[in-house]
Amino acid sequence: MVPRYSRPAMTALWEPEARYRIWFEIEALATQKLGELGVVPAGAAEALWSWWRTDPAIDVPAIDAIEAVTKHDVIAFLTWVAEQVGDDARFMHQGMTSSDVLDTTLAVQLARSADLLLADLDALLAALERRAQEHRYTPTIGRSHGIHAEPVTFGLKLAGYHAEFARNRARLVAARAEIATCAISGAVGTFANVAPEVEEFVADQLGLVPETVSTQVIPRDRHAMFFAVLGVIASSIERLAIEVRHLQRTEVLEAEEYFSPGQKGSSAMPHKRNPVLTENLTGLARMVRSATIPAMENVALWHERDISHSSVERFIGPDACITLDFALGRLTGVVDKLVIYPDRMQANLDRMGGLVHSQRVLLALTQAGVSREDSYRLVQRNAMKVWESDGKLSLLNLLQADPEVTAALPAAQLAEKFDLDYHLRQVDTIFDRVFGPSA
Amino acid sequence: MVPRYSRPAMTALWEPEARYRIWFEIEALATQKLGELGVVPAGAAEALWSWWRTDPAIDVPAIDAIEAVTKHDVIAFLTWVAEQVGDDARFMHQGMTSSDVLDTTLAVQLARSADLLLADLDALLAALERRAQEHRYTPTIGRSHGIHAEPVTFGLKLAGYHAEFARNRARLVAARAEIATCAISGAVGTFANVAPEVEEFVADQLGLVPETVSTQVIPRDRHAMFFAVLGVIASSIERLAIEVRHLQRTEVLEAEEYFSPGQKGSSAMPHKRNPVLTENLTGLARMVRSATIPAMENVALWHERDISHSSVERFIGPDACITLDFALGRLTGVVDKLVIYPDRMQANLDRMGGLVHSQRVLLALTQAGVSREDSYRLVQRNAMKVWESDGKLSLLNLLQADPEVTAALPAAQLAEKFDLDYHLRQVDTIFDRVFGPSA
Amino acid sequence: MVPRYSRPAMTALWEPEARYRIWFEIEALATQKLGELGVVPAGAAEALWSWWRTDPAIDVPAIDAIEAVTKHDVIAFLTWVAEQVGDDARFMHQGMTSSDVLDTTLAVQLARSADLLLADLDALLAALERRAQEHRYTPTIGRSHGIHAEPVTFGLKLAGYHAEFARNRARLVAARAEIATCAISGAVGTFANVAPEVEEFVADQLGLVPETVSTQVIPRDRHAMFFAVLGVIASSIERLAIEVRHLQRTEVLEAEEYFSPGQKGSSAMPHKRNPVLTENLTGLARMVRSATIPAMENVALWHERDISHSSVERFIGPDACITLDFALGRLTGVVDKLVIYPDRMQANLDRMGGLVHSQRVLLALTQAGVSREDSYRLVQRNAMKVWESDGKLSLLNLLQADPEVTAALPAAQLAEKFDLDYHLRQVDTIFDRVFGPSA
Amino acid sequence: MVPRYSRPAMTALWEPEARYRIWFEIEALATQKLGELGVVPAGAAEALWSWWRTDPAIDVPAIDAIEAVTKHDVIAFLTWVAEQVGDDARFMHQGMTSSDVLDTTLAVQLARSADLLLADLDALLAALERRAQEHRYTPTIGRSHGIHAEPVTFGLKLAGYHAEFARNRARLVAARAEIATCAISGAVGTFANVAPEVEEFVADQLGLVPETVSTQVIPRDRHAMFFAVLGVIASSIERLAIEVRHLQRTEVLEAEEYFSPGQKGSSAMPHKRNPVLTENLTGLARMVRSATIPAMENVALWHERDISHSSVERFIGPDACITLDFALGRLTGVVDKLVIYPDRMQANLDRMGGLVHSQRVLLALTQAGVSREDSYRLVQRNAMKVWESDGKLSLLNLLQADPEVTAALPAAQLAEKFDLDYHLRQVDTIFDRVFGPSA
Repeated sequence: MVPRYSRPAMTALWEPEARYRIWFEIEALATQKLGELGVVPAGAAEALWSWWRTDPAIDVPAIDAIEAVTKHDVIAFLTWVAEQVGDDARFMHQGMTSSDVLDTTLAVQLARSADLLLADLDALLAALERRAQEHRYTPTIGRSHGIHAEPVTFGLKLAGYHAEFARNRARLVAARAEIATCAISGAVGTFANVAPEVEEFVADQLGLVPETVSTQVIPRDRHAMFFAVLGVIASSIERLAIEVRHLQRTEVLEAEEYFSPGQKGSSAMPHKRNPVLTENLTGLARMVRSATIPAMENVALWHERDISHSSVERFIGPDACITLDFALGRLTGVVDKLVIYPDRMQANLDRMGGLVHSQRVLLALTQAGVSREDSYRLVQRNAMKVWESDGKLSLLNLLQADPEVTAALPAAQLAEKFDLDYHLRQVDTIFDRVFGPSA
Repeated sequence: MVPRYSRPAMTALWEPEARYRIWFEIEALATQKLGELGVVPAGAAEALWSWWRTDPAIDVPAIDAIEAVTKHDVIAFLTWVAEQVGDDARFMHQGMTSSDVLDTTLAVQLARSADLLLADLDALLAALERRAQEHRYTPTIGRSHGIHAEPVTFGLKLAGYHAEFARNRARLVAARAEIATCAISGAVGTFANVAPEVEEFVADQLGLVPETVSTQVIPRDRHAMFFAVLGVIASSIERLAIEVRHLQRTEVLEAEEYFSPGQKGSSAMPHKRNPVLTENLTGLARMVRSATIPAMENVALWHERDISHSSVERFIGPDACITLDFALGRLTGVVDKLVIYPDRMQANLDRMGGLVHSQRVLLALTQAGVSREDSYRLVQRNAMKVWESDGKLSLLNLLQADPEVTAALPAAQLAEKFDLDYHLRQVDTIFDRVFGPSA
Repeated sequence: MVPRYSRPAMTALWEPEARYRIWFEIEALATQKLGELGVVPAGAAEALWSWWRTDPAIDVPAIDAIEAVTKHDVIAFLTWVAEQVGDDARFMHQGMTSSDVLDTTLAVQLARSADLLLADLDALLAALERRAQEHRYTPTIGRSHGIHAEPVTFGLKLAGYHAEFARNRARLVAARAEIATCAISGAVGTFANVAPEVEEFVADQLGLVPETVSTQVIPRDRHAMFFAVLGVIASSIERLAIEVRHLQRTEVLEAEEYFSPGQKGSSAMPHKRNPVLTENLTGLARMVRSATIPAMENVALWHERDISHSSVERFIGPDACITLDFALGRLTGVVDKLVIYPDRMQANLDRMGGLVHSQRVLLALTQAGVSREDSYRLVQRNAMKVWESDGKLSLLNLLQADPEVTAALPAAQLAEKFDLDYHLRQVDTIFDRVFGPSA
Repeated sequence: MVPRYSRPAMTALWEPEARYRIWFEIEALATQKLGELGVVPAGAAEALWSWWRTDPAIDVPAIDAIEAVTKHDVIAFLTWVAEQVGDDARFMHQGMTSSDVLDTTLAVQLARSADLLLADLDALLAALERRAQEHRYTPTIGRSHGIHAEPVTFGLKLAGYHAEFARNRARLVAARAEIATCAISGAVGTFANVAPEVEEFVADQLGLVPETVSTQVIPRDRHAMFFAVLGVIASSIERLAIEVRHLQRTEVLEAEEYFSPGQKGSSAMPHKRNPVLTENLTGLARMVRSATIPAMENVALWHERDISHSSVERFIGPDACITLDFALGRLTGVVDKLVIYPDRMQANLDRMGGLVHSQRVLLALTQAGVSREDSYRLVQRNAMKVWESDGKLSLLNLLQADPEVTAALPAAQLAEKFDLDYHLRQVDTIFDRVFGPSA
């Protein structure tokens, strides 16, 4: 976790105190159910809960000090709680194993993180929709291979990102469901010393479902899937970030990150306004994505479990969630405040001498009976002249002066093929697909 | 694709001829719909289909030769088809762009690959269930950290893998749905020169759904998700493969890959029977997983598209699908024919002098009123003697001879805690979770 | 290996026949030395070599057929050779283990691959140097964050790439040295049944050095390092490819991939000339890089060896080498034939109204006694006007009209700061660093 | 950075204060040289240094507060220094760009980190050598595929790891040299406003070499190579960690991590002594390795630079260095205190009924004139009986009772082939290769 790339709500979920609070809840809930089942005295849970209702501070350094001796984190925590609560605490953790607490806690943390990330995605989707609607009909050049292709609208671009992040939202909902399981099944998952009812009760109270088969640990394919989904979301962030970076290039300058008063683009060059937020997002995306492989390497634990996954998750659990939360927030801000230059979009659209209409001419020629091969040749030979003139020549003019072309298509019909609106006829169709039918 | 790690049905899906066949179908279907819409002559599609009904061979080298000149694969193919079909072929591809064909074809290939992989998973699940039921009550030692922990059954191990691969099946069903989209939307996805009805018709005929927003290309977050799911499945394969490798270790030898007559384990050491299939699966898992990151790097295409994803997909499309298909098949064979040694399992269970029952004694002591800390100390000091004797001492005997222990728990009660069946009481509960309630 | 991304010389190194030829050489050389040492009859090697001198074809299908029974590749090969050579062949492989042959063969293949890649790098370096010298003084805008910064020359850009690929060459030389080791040490590397002299002899004959400690296998950290170096080289290819893609963007168009007569940029848009080679290189770089992690995962083989690395290497050995060889060749062609537009570079340099000189003014103001903060503010407030005018205003004019500026720097001194040549004074210094001092 | 996986010396290198101290040194050294060159007043540097000699505390929160306004870290720092030093500070950073400071600082941090890591490797190598010599002749079974193969010594195992880490040391020395470069070349690397002499001076003072070609930034292929080397070292750590984990398995138990008094292996099972340090190292290795790909993705910065690399490096710079430092320290402790059980090694060696000698019998049979195929068959048929008896039968006895065997090799000659010392004859040869010739 890098503080500058973190936000408080998500960070708080991953702090030691938050983890210990969940630990306590799991232990107390389990003790409560064990009391109901008659395995431990009914009063044991009450002693725990009545201490808890005093809203006690969690003394992290004290727990750390105990762990330095026991070299075992859960035992250290239980020892510390016993010091606070007294004799009744010895019934805690009855028949359970450390992983029952640790893995269920991680499930809670990841589920809560997913909730924050889903809220982040909702905010991003809202920003994308607002800006998409605002620029629904703002014409701009579509580019393939970085080269002018045919006209689109800026709203269409954003609608496409909306569709992509809506897919990401659905993926995260599924990944959240996968990760939100509870295991209270004992040392090797056989419920030998703790009845399945305890797991069911704790799961229910924490909003989880019981793990189908745990083997001391919750199987790590669930976590691998979760982090893979974060990696896909990060990759989508990268795509939008790179789009903005391209649009802000000096020669393009169709849109720009908001540049606040007092901001400095460069210590050396006072003229600079750089797309630093989206460049930053590009890097953050690499980091979130880098959690994918270690999470997958964590799956193949030995036999009923080894602990190699634990150190990995101490890194990627907080890092991937906190960084993705920050990145989604930053991206939402970029979209929300993006400075958009429709005039410049139009100017760029116009600068290639009408080349962007070449396909329509090609189609018209073939429909007028010219073979596809000949049509392509006729258009390409005129298009290349325009290309080499850097847009100073006009494709329409050249075509109208090419007798082999006009033999098939008279000048007036040629001119009709250079109509921008023609390209925008289906904008509403696509918007309906993304945002639902407009009223 | 490495021939020795491939199977014919999957490989066939990825061969040039298969690809060209799908290309033709897309082009012919689109032409058919364009004919219905009156954009091209109604007879154009019929000319294509009537040639197709002759079941023509696809002349891959001839197409390659054309591509060597045009440097454009789709144009090369269209040119070749035109040579076969004649003049009517010029209406093919009207208003479409190459990616309309390429991306929709990839969707078909991935969807069909997913179908094969789903069948593979079904076979694996069936094998796991059969062997799990067979060894539902076969006791074996559960191990955490590679160290004996407490008893489980071999069926429970396999049931856990069944649950994991059932999750993988569900993930793949979702990933298949994600990938099965059709784009026929033209150069920048605006349907400028091809009506959305064409896309809808082609999608429907091919069992796909129309892509929400395509931008010449189908967005690559879909493919990233697909390959990430393959990576998770591969990681689960690795987990089961490593389990088998561990079980076959000389000192453990609780199970063994089937070793066929005539097979040689080692060119130098005639005594060897090695778990080479599962070692091989471990490596194949690494390969399938390695497609994840490039697939994610493919997401951030520039503007409406660049073609950097294409070369990546020419590798990972066939490689990941073919290798995973082979690996699932191989794993199913391993599970199906796995030689299992219950006697050896029992012998291993017994070899630690009863240490595997230490937790029950710990719990009994705390329930008898000894503090948790003292209980742990009492059990640990006797357990460590057994440990250091390499199982030659008996934990029960030592405990029965420890007056501090017997003060709390009489010898007879201690003996009750060393009951293997106690650990297996919930086996049916867990099997019901995995396979549904037994009759 | 994808045929379209492969070249014959490199591909040939990785074909079965090439592998079998190396196998034979290793076996025959070892037999020869064993004969000298008196372990096997002196005539055994001679029988092998005399058959070899007949330049026999390697019957790959026959060997495959034997392997289908033995399930062991080396035994299958030895059996086939014995069928050809007769009784003397039984002395082959004496005291050796399969990995002695397999790992030493892989070393030979990787070393020879490295030699081809080094030649590729030399060709690329030559092309970069030629074009760098050609455009040593061609001014072009330097860009940070995609935004115009200050002038550089196009030759400087290429010189930087030359320096980077020269570093890559040095890395590959080191990686080749690491990988070029020979192991003939028997089943667990103890030379129990084969004397170290055999290893030394075979190593020497094949241009390798003996492996320090082999444990049946050559340790895989060597291979991990090798593939990591290929990954770094691929990343450098990506950097240059992306530079070209940027330069060819419609709005920039300072350079362009060579576009051959007859080539078609788009099936739909006849006007397109796309940077498809460098986009393709971007994707190929991802693939070569993706070998890095599986190669590192291969390091941790169990005990003296397991065979999980083998399937990985059957993929990444040929794939990474063949793809990188192809990519380097393609990149060299791109550099060699790159169409460079100095006029357009100058036009882009000029389009920002002199903003690129903002730093010099800033420095001059501070040197004239204005505080750094004030200097920055003065320059920035004028620069932002130019920025917002899209370069239609002139920074020099605005500054000369700003009395707070001219109070510190008179108009004439301001004008001096807008001198392009000022930025190019150290070009020769940098070229000397890269290419050595010019005469 | 996860505190529990960090050590103070390495962590200190990466704290904000340490970074700011290096920043100051670079700025002051550059100002000093600029003073010598007459570009700024000679007194400017002296003002900086005399403030510095007061050993001022770096007020990190104050600098952060300025950055919150300027959104530019270097400008914030310069502003803060100017507040401390006064008017002379305005000559700092003359002609430089932020990256001159940032990248040179990163070079210093990575070089110093490499120095710590090299010291770590030296400590590990010393521990490996000590334990290797201690167990030079301790026989133990060599295993391939997890299956008993032939005898080795425990010292040989450790000698192999020594050789591997010695290679890693050499790789890190090379990577350190690659990374230790200095760039003071201005906004686009042209030295337009800062003479190359300044770079040379700063480089020399800081123990760096001038970067060949910087383009505002130091090229990131250097960093990619550095992190790739850390990834390879991590992979070697994983290999040794997994070896220890295997040796500590209950059924093997040939070696064990030191288990300190008071330590608890499991909260639930008092009998457990788990290899948690090496399992932890396995996970840490995954994390260090995961920096490789983002570091490679950082190479392809746009044009003269974009800032996407920066956020990645804020994570992986400290994380990979700190984690690897911790891991090497932990591994050294594991090796140093490893509890080794030679008796158990011997017992395991003996448990397979002499199967480990099968190869020698095979060789003796072929040398006695039996064909290789027949020899293999004869040995395998007896070996398989021993295998199936789980070592209860004796291979020697069976062979001596097999008339087809004894027809070629009399019983006494067979017995000679079952000599353990035979396998250890070359131990000294191998030790000499690793540690140099013994006296």
